[in-house]
Amino acid sequence: MAEEKQQEEAKKEDVSVEETSEETTEVAPEKSELDLANERADEFENKYLRAAAEMQNIQRRANEERQQLQKYRSQDLGKAILPSLDNLERALAVEGLTEDVKKGLEMVQESLIAALKDEGIEEVPTDGEFDHNFHMAIQTVPADDDHPAGSIAQVFQKGYKLHERLLRPAMVVVAE
Amino acid sequence: MAEEKQQEEAKKEDVSVEETSEETTEVAPEKSELDLANERADEFENKYLRAAAEMQNIQRRANEERQQLQKYRSQDLGKAILPSLDNLERALAVEGLTEDVKKGLEMVQESLIAALKDEGIEEVPTDGEFDHNFHMAIQTVPADDDHPAGSIAQVFQKGYKLHERLLRPAMVVVAE
Repeated sequence: MAEEKQQEEAKKEDVSVEETSEETTEVAPEKSELDLANERADEFENKYLRAAAEMQNIQRRANEERQQLQKYRSQDLGKAILPSLDNLERALAVEGLTEDVKKGLEMVQESLIAALKDEGIEEVPTDGEFDHNFHMAIQTVPADDDHPAGSIAQVFQKGYKLHERLLRPAMVVVAE
Repeated sequence: MAEEKQQEEAKKEDVSVEETSEETTEVAPEKSELDLANERADEFENKYLRAAAEMQNIQRRANEERQQLQKYRSQDLGKAILPSLDNLERALAVEGLTEDVKKGLEMVQESLIAALKDEGIEEVPTDGEFDHNFHMAIQTVPADDDHPAGSIAQVFQKGYKLHERLLRPAMVVVAE
């Protein structure tokens, strides 16, 4: 009990010292051991809180980046495959193909399209209005009953997108 | 100066209290304010150091994961394209193709192989010894002068790997 009283006294002493030093900050008095310990504690508490917040940020950013990488992972290979699809279409348009060859080519074409679709890559629709976000006008024709002004009259080359991201625009003829 | 002396006194007081409490830890005396402040400082220093180390670990792991994701990003699409390559080969093996069709098919084949190669996907070599890591033996034939025991006598279906990772084994006939 005597010791406890001694500690109580020490605490009171500390508090009064603290108050005293606050009143006289202008003359920069030596800081007490308790002040220094408290400063160190505050400093590391702040550092710790900042590090913990930063850690959460890093985790969040890493998760977002991982999701983006996954979502668009097939962008390069998908883009590189598009000319093969164009060539397949051209080959299929050649006249006088035997049924065997035609079926073989169609199988290749379908399996490529299915593989791309599994990764989120699909043809850009060209059955509506011209949309500069997805179509590139390479020619214009006068509008008629079948093709009102602003609509797509013909598709020269198909466009493709990966989810909402355009891989290449469709090359089209626009009625005007 | 009187205040400084007061602080000096306070410090001495603290030290003596510390010593006293150390001597009597068995009876768990109340800790002094300085002890508590020092404990708090130590605790947050440790927490901060652990958080800083953990932050570096998270960064490192995120970087490694990003590299892995990039390296193997084309695994799924690449694998899904392989049957198209098989079908192209079969189409090219059909007799009586016109030169135009043959050239068209070869262009498609070459551009697909080039696109896959850009992503690290290549044919599994089948010109050496049978290797169960890359080949699947679906048949055996007696060894002869051209095909010593343990060598690959014929390839039924090509195998492919993405960097060092096998996408599918080559289906082969082994001499024995």
